[in-house]
Amino acid sequence: MNSSKIFGIHAVQAALDYSADKINKVWIDRQRKDKKQSALMSQLQKLSISYEPSDRKRLDKMTDGKNHQGIVAEVELPSVHSEDTLKHIVTSMTDVPFFLILDQVQDPHNLGACLRTADAAGVHGIIITKDNSSGITPTVCKVASGAAETVPVYQVTNLARTCRWLKQQNIWLMGATGDTEQSVFSADLTIPLALIMGTEGAGIRRLTEQQCDFLVKIPMIGQVESLNVSVAAGIMMYEVFKQRR
Amino acid sequence: MNSSKIFGIHAVQAALDYSADKINKVWIDRQRKDKKQSALMSQLQKLSISYEPSDRKRLDKMTDGKNHQGIVAEVELPSVHSEDTLKHIVTSMTDVPFFLILDQVQDPHNLGACLRTADAAGVHGIIITKDNSSGITPTVCKVASGAAETVPVYQVTNLARTCRWLKQQNIWLMGATGDTEQSVFSADLTIPLALIMGTEGAGIRRLTEQQCDFLVKIPMIGQVESLNVSVAAGIMMYEVFKQRR
Repeated sequence: MNSSKIFGIHAVQAALDYSADKINKVWIDRQRKDKKQSALMSQLQKLSISYEPSDRKRLDKMTDGKNHQGIVAEVELPSVHSEDTLKHIVTSMTDVPFFLILDQVQDPHNLGACLRTADAAGVHGIIITKDNSSGITPTVCKVASGAAETVPVYQVTNLARTCRWLKQQNIWLMGATGDTEQSVFSADLTIPLALIMGTEGAGIRRLTEQQCDFLVKIPMIGQVESLNVSVAAGIMMYEVFKQRR
Repeated sequence: MNSSKIFGIHAVQAALDYSADKINKVWIDRQRKDKKQSALMSQLQKLSISYEPSDRKRLDKMTDGKNHQGIVAEVELPSVHSEDTLKHIVTSMTDVPFFLILDQVQDPHNLGACLRTADAAGVHGIIITKDNSSGITPTVCKVASGAAETVPVYQVTNLARTCRWLKQQNIWLMGATGDTEQSVFSADLTIPLALIMGTEGAGIRRLTEQQCDFLVKIPMIGQVESLNVSVAAGIMMYEVFKQRR
């Protein structure tokens, strides 16, 4: 666990919904009085979580001037692991490796849902980029329904470099894209594997795609052009799961 | 398409994101002036969508006193179909039927994501309950990414009765639950089928479960107790897809 500052009505509400006992401290703008803030304050009181009335300037400073909506909280969130830890884990694995790489997936709901399915399907960890990715937030933890505590998340600064390193460890890189003929259902997924998913809009970045050993798609017979990232990841993770059992 | 009144900042924003040309008319509370409303108004102006400044009482009346946040819009949304239409479709089908039944799934994101995967996996239609279900809203359409226009949604008042009728048509009812030993991956899904999914919290209702011919689960080897509804539905829909090809 790792102590982090979060701010804004939604984030603090998500922290309350996720796990109120992970909230260490709350600061509230004493001059601000609106319905949403009052609702949060009465929830905090009910749960006996103390909060400190503060002036706006202090909250501005705590959040580097970001849009805190008059509320900041310090919460315990699961730690994100480093590239070094990933390397240590990979080189000491006895199972056939299976990682999920999310290439700049920014929506915390998608990361949360991927964590949840990853836990269920036996994925060894999720690798995310440092830039332009959702980290582990209260919303991620809430959506993950406990999986943010069980599935390790590794944050790397240079994904292409990490991909090259994974290949050196004999882990195959499989990229998910619509632009291929190869169905994921006819690929051999019993090999050491890292499944790479991109964003809903742009997909996997070109530099990442160049690192892939092979590309796969989910066959689609309707009109829509793609699936939701967490649904597509779920279908692919479970295809790996099935082939390995 | 079907002309419906929607209201509230989020719903109107979702309608704009989904398809601005489906918005017929907008009414705005002339006395209310806040940031979010102003942002919406400038988007409407840019898209040349006219809006009518109105007094609050009129908006209250249009929405039966609901929390409209000073904005109401008339939008064209895909029609929801009746039980009679469902019966007509089922009795005239030549393909092996495959329907998805959502038993009181209320989250529009889940309905939207299910529609999107249903389109891709060749599902013939989604059956929802009239009570306690998300209907087709702008948020559903936005998340469905076009599938709300291609996959028919049937709304029924008495799901248990519809289930009995489906069974009389030789369609097997398969309920998704954690409380069974049968894996969906070892069930025969080439038969005429309706897959029933319940809510995240409570699952399928008891009365609905009693109608099921058999129950299946997605095997899970981690710590979390269940998957997101739209992810679980996606994995199961694609298992049907695969077995039929």
